[in-house]
Amino acid sequence: MRALRGEKVERPPVWMMRQAGRYLPDFRKLRAEHEFFDRVQNPELACEITVMPIRQIGVDAAILFSDILVIPQAMNVEVVMVEGKGPVIPNPIRTKKQIDELVTADIAQRLDYVMKAITLTLNELNGDVPLIGFAGAPWTIFCYMIEGGGSKTFDKARQFCFAEPELAHQLLSKITDATIQYLKAKVQAGVQAIQLFDSWAGVLSPEDYKTYSLQYNKKIIGALNTSLPVIFFAKDIGFGLENLTDIGATALGLDWTIPADKARAITQNKITLQGNFDPTKLLASPKFITEEVNKMINGFGTQRYIANLGHGILPNVPVENAIAFVEAVKNYKSGVGNVG
Amino acid sequence: MRALRGEKVERPPVWMMRQAGRYLPDFRKLRAEHEFFDRVQNPELACEITVMPIRQIGVDAAILFSDILVIPQAMNVEVVMVEGKGPVIPNPIRTKKQIDELVTADIAQRLDYVMKAITLTLNELNGDVPLIGFAGAPWTIFCYMIEGGGSKTFDKARQFCFAEPELAHQLLSKITDATIQYLKAKVQAGVQAIQLFDSWAGVLSPEDYKTYSLQYNKKIIGALNTSLPVIFFAKDIGFGLENLTDIGATALGLDWTIPADKARAITQNKITLQGNFDPTKLLASPKFITEEVNKMINGFGTQRYIANLGHGILPNVPVENAIAFVEAVKNYKSGVGNVG
Repeated sequence: MRALRGEKVERPPVWMMRQAGRYLPDFRKLRAEHEFFDRVQNPELACEITVMPIRQIGVDAAILFSDILVIPQAMNVEVVMVEGKGPVIPNPIRTKKQIDELVTADIAQRLDYVMKAITLTLNELNGDVPLIGFAGAPWTIFCYMIEGGGSKTFDKARQFCFAEPELAHQLLSKITDATIQYLKAKVQAGVQAIQLFDSWAGVLSPEDYKTYSLQYNKKIIGALNTSLPVIFFAKDIGFGLENLTDIGATALGLDWTIPADKARAITQNKITLQGNFDPTKLLASPKFITEEVNKMINGFGTQRYIANLGHGILPNVPVENAIAFVEAVKNYKSGVGNVG
Repeated sequence: MRALRGEKVERPPVWMMRQAGRYLPDFRKLRAEHEFFDRVQNPELACEITVMPIRQIGVDAAILFSDILVIPQAMNVEVVMVEGKGPVIPNPIRTKKQIDELVTADIAQRLDYVMKAITLTLNELNGDVPLIGFAGAPWTIFCYMIEGGGSKTFDKARQFCFAEPELAHQLLSKITDATIQYLKAKVQAGVQAIQLFDSWAGVLSPEDYKTYSLQYNKKIIGALNTSLPVIFFAKDIGFGLENLTDIGATALGLDWTIPADKARAITQNKITLQGNFDPTKLLASPKFITEEVNKMINGFGTQRYIANLGHGILPNVPVENAIAFVEAVKNYKSGVGNVG
């Protein structure tokens, strides 16, 4: 929390995106017994999963186990998780009628199981580490709703914007409204920080990103209107990073394709940065991981910085390598290793 | 060719990546009758397909119909094209033994059908437009060989680099050697320009890109050692663009995530740029396409510039929209439309 506020810290805090995930043996056990959205919708399970990496890996923050696609579900769009394929939306949004019919009322009540999971988790964490709540950015949710599932490039989502800009904005506005209700309820339930994930930021040009993503993210962050810190993570944002500096976020999450020096220059060292370890590096040796973590922190510096991965941890990472990552941050001594 | 050499032109030339593709009805007819690699390996068919967009769409350059994965095939790696899925390599490279066994001798002879297709195509084109030959950058070929097919993020390829750097470099060197032989033969067969495709440049951090891609591309361009222009296209290169300015290429191809002003600033206006229309914009109206093309050329300027897409044309683009794109470039008048 101090790193987010820009206060002096002894060392950078560390957590990992998807830290409550398949690389943990205890998670895999629960996974064998419960379907994906059962785990998400059961507050006791969500709490149990959220807390796992705190005790087992030693990260400095918890992030509530959930999924960004609970928002389309709350809007009455069917979302199923297909083993080995990822999320599938059997009836993708294509028409004005479908958009008109989307539910945007009582979103917080419809996602009450999330608020219950937050209450349970806060009790369980007992103030040891802060709890982060999250949501998808409207553009990323829009991508899934139009495309009907995952994609390399979300061509259909972009096509929809260019061919039907009015409908695209109508849909993005509805997702934004739903997300604001959802996040306000999470804040009220007690999360200590919010992270917005714009996982598919990188499929738009920076100019089109302004039109189809940026304004909606600004609206969400503005609507929260709170002293609660907001971390905004836009994967593959590239040259669009400069558009994010005045988005209103407390911190920006970065993937590994953005060099630390470029990110610091673009954000004029005025904002906390989070990231950006290539997750596949956790599949190499602990020695390599430690060296690369040192390079990473040399690059970002220890202040206004939160060590993290540049994307979610991979399911096949050995637990000891995840621990090596966290320990390398905790044991970092400035000046050791090469400047990355 | 003049735009590549940096000479004054009346208007920017225009072609489209994958211009000899599925959006053309005549291509779809041939596709129904011949398997993918049959079309690639049959010089008459490859020639017929290459010439199609010249007469039917009016582009200013031809690019030989082929595939970057002919290189692994020539190295004795099986590659199959699976309908609706893309390329599959049934036995991905994972071991030193597999790398040792890869063939790197007589690559040009093994790909003799390409040289025959070049001869036929040059006859057919009769000097009306230049013929571009292409190859994949070693990093991109490596990605497919390790991963065993397409991927969103090529995690296995990156993992292999970080876990087995020596083997990775051994494999990249072999691919580089094969590619140099192949491209030298293409030059000898008469292509007037070369394009190197580093389609998966964007999955590496700029620092790791230097280690695992840049040096091999430099080696290839250096080995050609010719006055023939080389266009280097690295998709999603982002902040790594500055590493490409001294790669030795005549032109850099850009995707739509790199703004024209940033690209001109980074390359100090010293190099020809090619790109960067979002291919999904070709699925909107011809009016929208014309407006967006004007914005694009306003951004890049008419000199040292080749109009193109930022990635391959999509199979579902209406032919009239592809023509609208080409016509918009040909009819461009500076100062019309907004600066992009």
